[in-house]
Amino acid sequence: MSNLVEDFNAYRSQMNEKIMAADNLIIKRIFNLDTNAYQEGILSKKTKELIGLACSMVLRCDDCIKYHLEESKKAGLSNAEIYEAMAIANLIGGTIVIPHLRRAAEYLDALDTKPTPK
Amino acid sequence: MSNLVEDFNAYRSQMNEKIMAADNLIIKRIFNLDTNAYQEGILSKKTKELIGLACSMVLRCDDCIKYHLEESKKAGLSNAEIYEAMAIANLIGGTIVIPHLRRAAEYLDALDTKPTPK
Amino acid sequence: MSNLVEDFNAYRSQMNEKIMAADNLIIKRIFNLDTNAYQEGILSKKTKELIGLACSMVLRCDDCIKYHLEESKKAGLSNAEIYEAMAIANLIGGTIVIPHLRRAAEYLDALDTKPTPK
Amino acid sequence: MSNLVEDFNAYRSQMNEKIMAADNLIIKRIFNLDTNAYQEGILSKKTKELIGLACSMVLRCDDCIKYHLEESKKAGLSNAEIYEAMAIANLIGGTIVIPHLRRAAEYLDALDTKPTPK
Amino acid sequence: MSNLVEDFNAYRSQMNEKIMAADNLIIKRIFNLDTNAYQEGILSKKTKELIGLACSMVLRCDDCIKYHLEESKKAGLSNAEIYEAMAIANLIGGTIVIPHLRRAAEYLDALDTKPTPK
Amino acid sequence: MSNLVEDFNAYRSQMNEKIMAADNLIIKRIFNLDTNAYQEGILSKKTKELIGLACSMVLRCDDCIKYHLEESKKAGLSNAEIYEAMAIANLIGGTIVIPHLRRAAEYLDALDTKPTPK
Repeated sequence: MSNLVEDFNAYRSQMNEKIMAADNLIIKRIFNLDTNAYQEGILSKKTKELIGLACSMVLRCDDCIKYHLEESKKAGLSNAEIYEAMAIANLIGGTIVIPHLRRAAEYLDALDTKPTPK
Repeated sequence: MSNLVEDFNAYRSQMNEKIMAADNLIIKRIFNLDTNAYQEGILSKKTKELIGLACSMVLRCDDCIKYHLEESKKAGLSNAEIYEAMAIANLIGGTIVIPHLRRAAEYLDALDTKPTPK
Repeated sequence: MSNLVEDFNAYRSQMNEKIMAADNLIIKRIFNLDTNAYQEGILSKKTKELIGLACSMVLRCDDCIKYHLEESKKAGLSNAEIYEAMAIANLIGGTIVIPHLRRAAEYLDALDTKPTPK
Repeated sequence: MSNLVEDFNAYRSQMNEKIMAADNLIIKRIFNLDTNAYQEGILSKKTKELIGLACSMVLRCDDCIKYHLEESKKAGLSNAEIYEAMAIANLIGGTIVIPHLRRAAEYLDALDTKPTPK
Repeated sequence: MSNLVEDFNAYRSQMNEKIMAADNLIIKRIFNLDTNAYQEGILSKKTKELIGLACSMVLRCDDCIKYHLEESKKAGLSNAEIYEAMAIANLIGGTIVIPHLRRAAEYLDALDTKPTPK
Repeated sequence: MSNLVEDFNAYRSQMNEKIMAADNLIIKRIFNLDTNAYQEGILSKKTKELIGLACSMVLRCDDCIKYHLEESKKAGLSNAEIYEAMAIANLIGGTIVIPHLRRAAEYLDALDTKPTPK
């Protein structure tokens, strides 16, 4: 199961490169903005990651959830805090969110079994 | 193809256990409510399953569709009735729903080839 | 409050006419299909309306909800049955559905205070 | 403009009563769960409100946004913090969120001009 | 009915100012990017507006639809072309899109009765 | 990677057959309408495909994106034009669209490495 994390990150990097190679100005500006938005600022990195995670849950985007789970762990959030944010997302977004919660639980486990990649 | 059903149910059970182990109160109450809501009541189990199926189609959640397809069969609904509910969902939700209809057709077939798990 | 129903239906008819006047072939075929789909058939008119209502709730479309509430009443469904369908939609779609449930409650009330338009 | 807040809250209370009067068990349990979920707990009330606000933005529910804006102010969050959460939601949800950001800005202003209702 | 256009544009400008006054860096960059993206470039302004209109239809954002209807007219698109784009959006997005098509028809009419604001 | 295209098309055809075999009238009419809607008409085939692609992006349907990418190439659109349409969709739909952009980049590459299937 620990390959889940590596596979996800490898695919993500490889495809980001492909997209960057297309050299579309609008896309490049969106990616640039995305990189900067989650940095420590008016809100803490932790709070921003929990917001990103919960929004990804209610919008039901598995890859976005995986990304924010990993960033949440890196930011020092505990599993209990992560589950509480996902619980609120589950309540807001309804039972349709549950299959994504299952995949989130699997990925969180995978993050815990192997050292978070640097 | 008949492994589709078993794999889906095995993954579902395994991950539900992981989620329950996290012991989050809000999530546990949502799961509990979800279990009870589809029982025979003011509306028949059949009608509730068709509503669950159609809502899963328009919200485009493959796992939710699979779950409600299996429950619909268990409740005694015919494939013609199931397809009619999916047709209304397709009309309401538009052609964006069609890829999910494809996967639903595949899963319904898998349910028909093997005995519905008890 | 009883003007809610009349105003909704008047606007709906007037705008449908405007759309038909544009004479777009694709749109005309969609409207035609929509008119026929909810007729008694493989599933009963009642079941189809509950499906239409629940899908409108999870997709959070107030006008679609109003339309299916009125059709549900015409088909002879009780308020308890209507609320049960909306409850399942609320569970599936989450608390984000609640503001639409409020407007549905208001409209259902308006339908009850005045005779359903023929 | 200060009537915005009062009107919203009055309509909300009145319709919640109507819904409760329908006495549907599933809906009552969802409402009950919703009331409890945002209380101070594993995550702070402030963090939960920002999560609720951002999720409401990306799901584009104006009434939910209004509710969480008011709760955010009550919890002691500053406008800068609120805007930062909405900014992340805007980035995640895209420019389709902007019209809801406009109505949020209007409502936040209305909350600032009159004392927050107790 | 011709006030529809003026009211929409006035509210839009006024609220954009309020948002800009909040001076949030992420939001300002999104607004800036939004302004530039629809300019004549790799794709024509006309094609971009039709894409913007159709996306606004399937995402069911009335204000976004209004904005792109007005920009489409300014770019010289005919009502027949505009309706064809909306028809494809209606097909992709399903009958849930129809209430938004009604409001689009109303707004397009309002744009035709009064001179497009400069 | 070049199997991506063949696998997608084979699965699509096979499942469409299964769906057609169910012989549901509403579904057959939707499929029929879908086939005809994208033909050269009031708008060019190219414009319609870009609209279909962008709508599929903002609605985040990978299979729909794949289908319209292939049709876009067949219609003679360049990768730069395709990326510009996807960029606008990314802006409208937000960063939640990015994982779908990654899979689109992968599929577009696969379409370029092998001759487009007839």
